[in-house]
Amino acid sequence: MPEEIRAQFEDDRIRLGPEALPELFEQGYFGRPKGKGLELSLVEAAYLLDRSRIKIMRNEKELDFRSFFQAASSMEKGFEFRYVVYKDLRERGYYVQPGRPDFRVYPRGGHPGKGPAEFYVLVISERNPLPLKDIMEPVRLAGQMRKKLMLAIVDEESDITFYEARERSMAGMMAGLENGGMATLLEDRVVLWDTEASRLLHESGFFGKPVGERLQLSLVESAYLLEKGKLQLTDRQGRPVDLPALTARAEQIDEDFELKLGAYRDLREKSLVVKTGFKFGTHFRVYKQVHGTLKVPHSEYLVHAIPLDHVFMPPVLSRAVRLAHSVRKLMVFAYPDDGIGYLEIKRLKP
Amino acid sequence: MPEEIRAQFEDDRIRLGPEALPELFEQGYFGRPKGKGLELSLVEAAYLLDRSRIKIMRNEKELDFRSFFQAASSMEKGFEFRYVVYKDLRERGYYVQPGRPDFRVYPRGGHPGKGPAEFYVLVISERNPLPLKDIMEPVRLAGQMRKKLMLAIVDEESDITFYEARERSMAGMMAGLENGGMATLLEDRVVLWDTEASRLLHESGFFGKPVGERLQLSLVESAYLLEKGKLQLTDRQGRPVDLPALTARAEQIDEDFELKLGAYRDLREKSLVVKTGFKFGTHFRVYKQVHGTLKVPHSEYLVHAIPLDHVFMPPVLSRAVRLAHSVRKLMVFAYPDDGIGYLEIKRLKP
Repeated sequence: MPEEIRAQFEDDRIRLGPEALPELFEQGYFGRPKGKGLELSLVEAAYLLDRSRIKIMRNEKELDFRSFFQAASSMEKGFEFRYVVYKDLRERGYYVQPGRPDFRVYPRGGHPGKGPAEFYVLVISERNPLPLKDIMEPVRLAGQMRKKLMLAIVDEESDITFYEARERSMAGMMAGLENGGMATLLEDRVVLWDTEASRLLHESGFFGKPVGERLQLSLVESAYLLEKGKLQLTDRQGRPVDLPALTARAEQIDEDFELKLGAYRDLREKSLVVKTGFKFGTHFRVYKQVHGTLKVPHSEYLVHAIPLDHVFMPPVLSRAVRLAHSVRKLMVFAYPDDGIGYLEIKRLKP
Repeated sequence: MPEEIRAQFEDDRIRLGPEALPELFEQGYFGRPKGKGLELSLVEAAYLLDRSRIKIMRNEKELDFRSFFQAASSMEKGFEFRYVVYKDLRERGYYVQPGRPDFRVYPRGGHPGKGPAEFYVLVISERNPLPLKDIMEPVRLAGQMRKKLMLAIVDEESDITFYEARERSMAGMMAGLENGGMATLLEDRVVLWDTEASRLLHESGFFGKPVGERLQLSLVESAYLLEKGKLQLTDRQGRPVDLPALTARAEQIDEDFELKLGAYRDLREKSLVVKTGFKFGTHFRVYKQVHGTLKVPHSEYLVHAIPLDHVFMPPVLSRAVRLAHSVRKLMVFAYPDDGIGYLEIKRLKP
């Protein structure tokens, strides 16, 4: 066991002399060289203190782990979360350095000075609401730097769930759009009456749900077909219903309607097949291609439409991603952003 | 093909003569005998009309399916949903009769007059918020009548997901509670410093999460242990923290804290082991028994604490139950009600 190296706790920094460089920096990539010595973050210092690699002095007095941990935790917001994540990643054998947004992680076999970092890490407490923009900013930064973004969410019992977040482009292989003909708007759905048009629209684009020989369309399907001039819609009294009237009605029934229609339209225009994701608790399930409807393939994506100012609650995010994985689909969030942007979030097992 | 039987559409009723009794009631259990003839609900009539078993006259004029469907849909709120569910269950070969809350369904091989109904059916639109009390009332009614309650949720594309809802009693096999000793309240969790007490508390009751040789406890675990006199809690400056102070702090951090603590306490008092359900997007995962912590068994339940005035959003309910099934657990909602009541909701495949 090497002797513990003496560190000075001054203000919010941990400083060590030149003797720390060969042992802590060159061997373990702890800290950053500063002047002739080494400087550690509070998290790094707590980790090394717990492993008896350093001892920490403040005003000539040695601090035990408890005292140091309490002091660091008072000093630095989120210290406990970062400590739990740092310790976990280090103990899995990764080299980790403090950096934007919280840490940089090197790939297995890599380390600072030998190849680039693989991940940027954003540490999140289960309890803290997480605005979309707080994910998109590091997602884009990571994308520009050719890194991946790792989200490390610490739950109330200090267990960590790791996710990867990235921008995603969506594309499918379905083209063409059949005509639906005459249709009636009922309470919150639309019925197509022509049995042949019903069959064609369902077979070719997987629109609607056959109920007997007629097709029931959802509001979002109906609005899209109406936009495209593929539907002649009336109300139950036979009066014509145009797109603004349908949209106004749909917004009364479903406050997410406009958001959903924006994502639905974009996905259909990108040649994907879009159906309700109700059974999965999301807005849509999405297929790259459907050949007829006798044998419907596995849908690849679950897509949930969110506004640009959306704030994720980590437990809800966790549930959505967990559920998508359990049914072998990718969880994608669609947000309006100069067109529609797509954010994919998936579990990582580091 | 038997000839279509003539039915009269008067006000909101469909009336048929005595000739309908042998063919529709005695063979198919459609409608209810009334005077010398038969009376059908609008949903039954639409089903029989679509199958060309009856023809429907109003003011001497015959109505086609489209006209009748539009009229019925204007007249009866939720008609489309009930029609879709009725048709689905009939086509699966079940005898279905109108009744409280929406339908009664007979078991396979059973029918009205031969044994009792098996299910009461509550039809729900995906879009309609569903207050807890609107489930508990039929759950209790069904329980008293020794029936099961089926929830049939119709999504925006007219697909149906079936659930069974029932009251559940919860019980486990874990007894005894170790002492945790000195502990410090940090930002939103508690650290136990004594390594032996940490080990015992974790091993015997699966409390907390070991971080190094110390235990981190969640706020709800800490509050429960503090209630039980098993913890001496201080803040980072060493000042004592009592239960009211901890609870007040916890409620600032987690607005569901009191709800969660109520369910947590009740489950622990019922000898169950309760841990966070974060990874599943619920408040808790619950074990009947845990022997040591080297080999943690499968947890049987996911439990989410809700207030008595809770309103379910069907897509959120659907996601919770779907996720619980995908990890082979039962989804249980805990609500305060003269103690804590438990509502189990699971998928049904009729």
